[in-house]
Amino acid sequence: MSERAVVLLSGGLDSATALAIARDTGYDCYALSLSYGQRHATELAAAKRVASAIGVNEHLVLPMALDLIGGSALTDHSIRVPEKESPGIPVTYVPARNTIFLALALGWAEVLEADDLFIGVNALDYSGYPDCRPVFIEAFEQMANLATRRAVEGQRVQIHAPLMQMTKAQIIRRGITLGVDYGLTVSCYQADAEGRACGVCDSCRLRRRGFEEAGIADPTRYASG
Amino acid sequence: MSERAVVLLSGGLDSATALAIARDTGYDCYALSLSYGQRHATELAAAKRVASAIGVNEHLVLPMALDLIGGSALTDHSIRVPEKESPGIPVTYVPARNTIFLALALGWAEVLEADDLFIGVNALDYSGYPDCRPVFIEAFEQMANLATRRAVEGQRVQIHAPLMQMTKAQIIRRGITLGVDYGLTVSCYQADAEGRACGVCDSCRLRRRGFEEAGIADPTRYASG
Repeated sequence: MSERAVVLLSGGLDSATALAIARDTGYDCYALSLSYGQRHATELAAAKRVASAIGVNEHLVLPMALDLIGGSALTDHSIRVPEKESPGIPVTYVPARNTIFLALALGWAEVLEADDLFIGVNALDYSGYPDCRPVFIEAFEQMANLATRRAVEGQRVQIHAPLMQMTKAQIIRRGITLGVDYGLTVSCYQADAEGRACGVCDSCRLRRRGFEEAGIADPTRYASG
Repeated sequence: MSERAVVLLSGGLDSATALAIARDTGYDCYALSLSYGQRHATELAAAKRVASAIGVNEHLVLPMALDLIGGSALTDHSIRVPEKESPGIPVTYVPARNTIFLALALGWAEVLEADDLFIGVNALDYSGYPDCRPVFIEAFEQMANLATRRAVEGQRVQIHAPLMQMTKAQIIRRGITLGVDYGLTVSCYQADAEGRACGVCDSCRLRRRGFEEAGIADPTRYASG
């Protein structure tokens, strides 16, 4: 039997690539998606397509009412998604999101007897979210190794962030090599019900630029244009 | 305006005391309870009574489908709650529970602009759960200070575990001094629909012994006896 890994899968470009890398490394993959009241619920449909195309042993979609907490344009519909670049951490930042997602992944991993967690965070072509930085991932891993019965019994947990130091273009090239069909993924923060991207939000801009820099045709379906 | 604190409130004896301590320290308290598919759902009714009796600015009950993850006698009804003491970490341990709960508290705290989190963990009269130990709480605090926008902008988050080094008897005496009505709390892992305790699970045994050692009449309603 192969080793098991839990892979956080949003349905976007980065997490699809992280899943493909985990598969390629030889892990039996358990994909975890969170239905957290996000605007871009079409992401979850994308996550299902991606999990099925790349191949996972199980895909768990956990409901998580982060809209009750709010504080982000992604979970509070009264806050607009910005359509221009601006300095600082954008309002699409979801308070403690990666802490919450990794905590749930850690719990599931323990039940599965898995010691490897994958997350598609990236610190180069990213929105400046604090919980996408290497220093955060390292601190989470240290904490995780004190948190669970499994860790206390000597099984070291590892948090893999294989995209951390890659540009968006490098991520896309790597994914293409591994056979990822990016036409299945949705990155847009405000995609329409058919999964068509706005083309102007932060996430769309980073993605579009990535395909341009990679010199690869952009398979994204845009709502207009 | 007073400083705000987010207090994890299960409805049990320890978290009620932690809330009373946070109030006594002068914080405006925001109580967070998780409805996580636990057997002892009467805990949540207790949490509401306790929040109301001690006084909070808001009480948020977040649904959390940890039963979809399972792996514990508290969330998987096919695993029996043990009624005798046994060595090691018991099957009532919920994988990564305090990591998940503190992560959600951290997210809510950021929205509330609160920098103080309270959790009623205890490392003396406890069940041996790894995520109740000081070393875990310290590691979580370090991670939390790298995780959020608020922390990155210079507001240090602190995780308060005021019961950490107290015996159950000391906790009870402290709570009584602060006016906590322990008759409102439910600690039992398998309380009945009326909130009556089994008297034999780990949590009941620790609680009962605490009242005995404190020399205080036990207000717990037991199902039998």
